Amino acid sequence: MNAKKAFEWLLDKSRDIAYLQSMKALLIWDQHTFAPPKGLHHRADQIAAITRLIHSRITDPKRGDMLREVEGTDLVKDASSVEAVNVREWRRSFDRATKIPESLAGEISRASSEGETVWEIARPLNDWNSLRPHLERLVNLKREEASLLGFGKEPYNALLDDFEPGETAANIELVFSKLREPLVELLKKIMCSSTRPDTSVVHRHFPRSGQQAFEKYALKQIGFDFKAGRVNTSAHPFSAFIGPGDVRITTRYDESSFTMAFFSSLHEAGHAFYELGLPQEHWGTPMGQAISHGIHESQSRIWEKLVGTSLGFWKYFYHETRRQFSALREVSLDVFHSAVNDVNPSLIRTEADEITYNLHVMLRFELELALIRQDLSVVDLPEAWNKKMKSYLGLTPPDYSSGVMQDIHWSGG
Amino acid sequence: MNAKKAFEWLLDKSRDIAYLQSMKALLIWDQHTFAPPKGLHHRADQIAAITRLIHSRITDPKRGDMLREVEGTDLVKDASSVEAVNVREWRRSFDRATKIPESLAGEISRASSEGETVWEIARPLNDWNSLRPHLERLVNLKREEASLLGFGKEPYNALLDDFEPGETAANIELVFSKLREPLVELLKKIMCSSTRPDTSVVHRHFPRSGQQAFEKYALKQIGFDFKAGRVNTSAHPFSAFIGPGDVRITTRYDESSFTMAFFSSLHEAGHAFYELGLPQEHWGTPMGQAISHGIHESQSRIWEKLVGTSLGFWKYFYHETRRQFSALREVSLDVFHSAVNDVNPSLIRTEADEITYNLHVMLRFELELALIRQDLSVVDLPEAWNKKMKSYLGLTPPDYSSGVMQDIHWSGG
Repeated sequence: MNAKKAFEWLLDKSRDIAYLQSMKALLIWDQHTFAPPKGLHHRADQIAAITRLIHSRITDPKRGDMLREVEGTDLVKDASSVEAVNVREWRRSFDRATKIPESLAGEISRASSEGETVWEIARPLNDWNSLRPHLERLVNLKREEASLLGFGKEPYNALLDDFEPGETAANIELVFSKLREPLVELLKKIMCSSTRPDTSVVHRHFPRSGQQAFEKYALKQIGFDFKAGRVNTSAHPFSAFIGPGDVRITTRYDESSFTMAFFSSLHEAGHAFYELGLPQEHWGTPMGQAISHGIHESQSRIWEKLVGTSLGFWKYFYHETRRQFSALREVSLDVFHSAVNDVNPSLIRTEADEITYNLHVMLRFELELALIRQDLSVVDLPEAWNKKMKSYLGLTPPDYSSGVMQDIHWSGG
Repeated sequence: MNAKKAFEWLLDKSRDIAYLQSMKALLIWDQHTFAPPKGLHHRADQIAAITRLIHSRITDPKRGDMLREVEGTDLVKDASSVEAVNVREWRRSFDRATKIPESLAGEISRASSEGETVWEIARPLNDWNSLRPHLERLVNLKREEASLLGFGKEPYNALLDDFEPGETAANIELVFSKLREPLVELLKKIMCSSTRPDTSVVHRHFPRSGQQAFEKYALKQIGFDFKAGRVNTSAHPFSAFIGPGDVRITTRYDESSFTMAFFSSLHEAGHAFYELGLPQEHWGTPMGQAISHGIHESQSRIWEKLVGTSLGFWKYFYHETRRQFSALREVSLDVFHSAVNDVNPSLIRTEADEITYNLHVMLRFELELALIRQDLSVVDLPEAWNKKMKSYLGLTPPDYSSGVMQDIHWSGG
């Protein structure tokens, strides 16, 4: 077989795997939006089954043979050609996956679905004891995965590499160590300033139906295509990339806050725009996929923060905002714009401002790293969380729900 | 390998296949409820991909080997044992599927998804010309499938066998021929009777929200578990069996009719009850599956007709119905009960009464049979439809939408 033929074969298999992955995306989207509670056990089984299937496809020894047929040939000489990029990334995923047995891949997937389901029930009940064993199971499974991937002394790097190819814990620690002090200093200055925005104006009564109508209007205006996507409600906002022409976002509403749902929707729309902007002709191959979670998140943060809290944005939208919400009728653009730019330490990451958000991220990174390094055990996690919250933001969560249990991510592995 | 081990292997593969089938059920449910229009092309691709995958699993030659290991052994001596029933049905599906190449299975699936999508757009527009080529393609594909399955002179039997194992066109023709005349006679008598119910009372204004609330109440009362299912809206009502604890139904609303959505929901609930009543411990094996489409339909019709239009049912529910709808405040139980038991030829099957429903079914059976026998071509289908409607029910559809294009089923193959 020649290199060209082997490449075509790999391309074909890549699309096959992508169809399976896009089915998994729908299973997960439905799990968090519409699946009835008694069907969630079956859903975890379904997701585990498709994860095992995807894993077995990715690790098919024939893929290894075909990769060897292409690698080093003229077809991939130009490192930035479509062929070279795809082959490089296929190799990366093949090498990673072949280190993980199918049974472990299925087990992690099941633990992840089950963890998320337990989180959805336990968080509103502040029920840390129900969630704890699931987190312990997940930390153990991820440690096992990391040790099989074999990244030497820092197993965290093995896991990180799946989200940010080439990134290391040491490098992130370096960046964060330079940011931490100045951010804490800046925060102190802002908190001591005599000019403070009146944030009460965005915490009046904002009826859910009005929030949904305004959100739909704004999303349409910034280019979200409702014929190629949808907005639903879920316990934790997320985006689901089902495939070309089908990118969905979710949000959650609080009638006593204008900012929570709206900026979360802008954030998720940023993720959706990035996905919809990927080259469709390369769908199902690495060339058509997001390059890293960091880049993805940069797109969502641009919409949420750089665009969404700018004066230009609200000069355009505020007329409609005020029309929609009687609570804002007497509030001027300036007062409103200041309110949505407020900096103030708060317990919940997804509602945090531009300064404190970074501290929320650092806190999670440090705790995750400690868990994987076995410097911290899950049973001590709430205390460690609260200690860092006190040190970075001066706050102590009154309960687990607004502390260690606020995000879904750890429950999903 | 001994028979017991081979049986265990087959059991394992049967569950693997069932997980794939339950993913396909979710893909189809989502296609008709929430998928954005621009994502439907990708959805057809996804469904074709999983159909090919299921087909390749069912036709795995190793399944043939394993079946031969078990067949004729003591393990399956008792024909009604779990082992014998499963082996018999695995053999049936293996023999059917191995006659169909994977490419044709995928092609039929794609034509089916695309046909349904076109139907959903074309029906409200009365656009027969857009749908016609899709039906032609499907008829050709189904003819090809039938000829590969090889059921001799009557290719329709090959297709029928998938829905009603062992049933034949000749037998159905015999049953229908005995029923047709007496039904038409009975209908004539009813139409000439001087006692006619006042059906106007169920065609007043019934707000959608009230219909949804009453439907939810009634479904709960008859035992539909909203923790193990849900109700959504779709262009054509259907049920989706996602798996244990997850059985979903859909309906469609018309504010000028009480009967359309309500009895359709009762019908679909009947399907759901049957699925939820199947033995869960046998999920993923023939022992845990519906025995035939006819039996399934009998359960839905029992709830829709035998229970749902009975006096006992309305003695229990009518108090709440009247409370919910101001249009019924002055309508007595007797008048209402007569109205929902009205017999009257009408164009739409799903809204038909107990007598004329059978004539609707006969009409479809006869036309289908003629299409597969090549006695009728798709281009002549609307005329043939209208001719039979005139002959059986004395009606002529004013347009395609309420005639040949009313049901989704042909568009789905």
